Amino acid sequence: MDETPSKNRKTVKIPDTSSPRIIIIGGGFGGLELAKSLRKVDCQVILFDKNNHHTFQPLLYQVATSGLETNSIIYPFRKLFEKVKNFYFRMGEVEKIDPEARTIYTSIGDVSYDYLVIATGTTTNYYGMEDISKYAVPMKSIQDAIRLRNRIIRGFEQALLTDDFEMMNSYMDFVVVGGGPTGVEIAGALAELKKHVFPRDYKELDLKEMDIHLVEANHHLLNGMADISGKKSKEFLEQMGVQVHLGKSVKSYDGYKVILNDGTEMITKHLIWAAGVTGTPIEGIDASAIGRGNRFLVDEYNRVKGYENIFAIGDIAAMITDKYPYGHPQVAPTAMQQGKLLAKNLPQIFKGQGLKPFKYLNKGAMATIGRNKAVVEVGKFKTQGFFAWFIWMFVHLMSLVGFRNRIFVFWSWLWSYISYDKSNRLIIDKGEEHFEQTLEKT
Amino acid sequence: MDETPSKNRKTVKIPDTSSPRIIIIGGGFGGLELAKSLRKVDCQVILFDKNNHHTFQPLLYQVATSGLETNSIIYPFRKLFEKVKNFYFRMGEVEKIDPEARTIYTSIGDVSYDYLVIATGTTTNYYGMEDISKYAVPMKSIQDAIRLRNRIIRGFEQALLTDDFEMMNSYMDFVVVGGGPTGVEIAGALAELKKHVFPRDYKELDLKEMDIHLVEANHHLLNGMADISGKKSKEFLEQMGVQVHLGKSVKSYDGYKVILNDGTEMITKHLIWAAGVTGTPIEGIDASAIGRGNRFLVDEYNRVKGYENIFAIGDIAAMITDKYPYGHPQVAPTAMQQGKLLAKNLPQIFKGQGLKPFKYLNKGAMATIGRNKAVVEVGKFKTQGFFAWFIWMFVHLMSLVGFRNRIFVFWSWLWSYISYDKSNRLIIDKGEEHFEQTLEKT
Repeated sequence: MDETPSKNRKTVKIPDTSSPRIIIIGGGFGGLELAKSLRKVDCQVILFDKNNHHTFQPLLYQVATSGLETNSIIYPFRKLFEKVKNFYFRMGEVEKIDPEARTIYTSIGDVSYDYLVIATGTTTNYYGMEDISKYAVPMKSIQDAIRLRNRIIRGFEQALLTDDFEMMNSYMDFVVVGGGPTGVEIAGALAELKKHVFPRDYKELDLKEMDIHLVEANHHLLNGMADISGKKSKEFLEQMGVQVHLGKSVKSYDGYKVILNDGTEMITKHLIWAAGVTGTPIEGIDASAIGRGNRFLVDEYNRVKGYENIFAIGDIAAMITDKYPYGHPQVAPTAMQQGKLLAKNLPQIFKGQGLKPFKYLNKGAMATIGRNKAVVEVGKFKTQGFFAWFIWMFVHLMSLVGFRNRIFVFWSWLWSYISYDKSNRLIIDKGEEHFEQTLEKT
Repeated sequence: MDETPSKNRKTVKIPDTSSPRIIIIGGGFGGLELAKSLRKVDCQVILFDKNNHHTFQPLLYQVATSGLETNSIIYPFRKLFEKVKNFYFRMGEVEKIDPEARTIYTSIGDVSYDYLVIATGTTTNYYGMEDISKYAVPMKSIQDAIRLRNRIIRGFEQALLTDDFEMMNSYMDFVVVGGGPTGVEIAGALAELKKHVFPRDYKELDLKEMDIHLVEANHHLLNGMADISGKKSKEFLEQMGVQVHLGKSVKSYDGYKVILNDGTEMITKHLIWAAGVTGTPIEGIDASAIGRGNRFLVDEYNRVKGYENIFAIGDIAAMITDKYPYGHPQVAPTAMQQGKLLAKNLPQIFKGQGLKPFKYLNKGAMATIGRNKAVVEVGKFKTQGFFAWFIWMFVHLMSLVGFRNRIFVFWSWLWSYISYDKSNRLIIDKGEEHFEQTLEKT
């Protein structure tokens, strides 16, 4: 990554057109919305992504806990855009940007652009703790989710085999770090596995030994949502048997023993890390354009500070305003709204006409804890419990990308609701060496 | 595998009962049917498998060609047997059998048995050709199917990037070896991708360049079925654009160039190997009990030659009879019938009473080539085309393990039929190094 790409590198083959070329890096919520909204604009849109599919991140935790199958929450880009004439997809990772040459250097070659939009999102933040980044399980990609599913199930198979009580517990116990929506949702889903699924599968184990800890550094869950939502989700989680530790943080983890900042020790093979995210700025952009949380500083048109034709949208962008001194919430609606607006502003730029500044419309927030249990707030309206859970399901179903995926998720949920079952408890890997090693460790 | 397991090895923890302990190695069609049929027998059933799920092998090719999602054709053993009291599952690989000590040595420890049933099936047979085993893609496990799907899609993404015409073709061309049901079905499914799916996804490529070759050493397809079935499937395949090469075999393959025995050369990155299977006898069984194709020679009660309490069923067993001098067909019905009969004979053995010999009921054979195109024969009844295709779908749907999987496969098929689409064209891996290497090769 540090080497300057040599001049012998090949160029990515893309048809030449006379229309302006817009390269979008990243097909998350923001990049996708932008590409879709540009479909009738006279320009050439090139989407770069390291995967060939969009990932619906809000439901990753359900894949990890056997509730949904992998393919229901990811969707091939090419299928999404099969009828869009100005759209080109290229699978590759962007390594460096050369703003002077208006070129990006990628794992598959170089491409020049007229306008560049960075929509790469964020990655897991371990706050520099190397032991944690080595042994903890992140929850950001579909690969992470599959790996966690494999680990959970494999851990229970291992628990059956040991005579050592502490060792057995290490396979059956979970420490989830981070009390945001992801942490809350995964802790809740684990509690459902404990209550409804594993007692049927592992009659030889005493499921009372399965402890689920949720550790959050703040003094309330769901930071950023109203107090009532945090309180109520704590209540729901505790009803379901989750042990919630507020005002605490993880100091160290060696793959077996977790030590918290107050000295508390816990034994687990599964430390699930949902405690924070950070941007990963691409090389080539001036350091002065990078702000807190490694996000690109952008103006009200999502233009990266100091550049005329480079934009950033979504989680990776920080638009500093009076109301949002640290940038807007890093959630899907922000990214989608910025993508949609940029698709309107770009043609204005082509024509040299006036631009419309970004105005964030807060669509509210929600999290689900378990069966019939969720918290929802939209403006001043707040609700918790069954009705909130129903809203949560409806909103997620409607937000899913691809009609087919909506149908499949709907059926999966209906099936699970009736049967109290999560059917995808499958181990599909070739033996994950790293985990095997930590499994051997006593 | 060659070392004698030391006495320091641990024992697999399994509750002790006074009932006879039956260990089944392998949860394919035979092992599953046996375990199910033993559910009311007074015995302890222990199923060993390296996966935690049954794999419905007949539909692997649809996972590989993006028609079905992974989880629809595999099913967790524990879920299947959650209500069965005498059933225990252990995930592990069996390394050696010690018939004297009535013990198996496995990757997770040792276990003793009263009766042992080997139901390990077969593995891909490369007939000793190392280059082929190194570069070809097998189609025996769910991992194989996922890997092939990743390769096919990744290959098309690569084809877009090259200026070299031959190289581009190498990514787009396929050579399927073996004209049995698997080979015929996968060639047909590739032809459907060529016709209905890839033209929408890869408008920049000329799909006429996508060549699909099917190579079969015999002079007809679907050896073992009636002539009309072989002829008709060749006709169907050719209608769909597949080039069928009969009476030819593959001599060598270096990951790029295939050479046939008549000197014909073909360029492809994808050599799909469905040309034969072989047993993999477990160490510890006397060589005199191993016959042609590495199958265990069994008597009419599926008892392995020379052993009182070791049995073999399904593909790995060869029961030599006048009618079947090389053993019965290696198909699911044989395995299921043998499993069912053994479940009846075992209690008789416990009681020291007479056993019932195996009698194979030929349920017919079938293969599907594509949309509305299949061949079916049941006894003297033979049909080809739409009606055969309908029968094929019905039989496979009903044979699938798990009601939930039946529903999901049904919906997937209905969806594909209406939309002419195969929605699971996803790359989910961490970059498969081996393939990446062969991709780099010119």
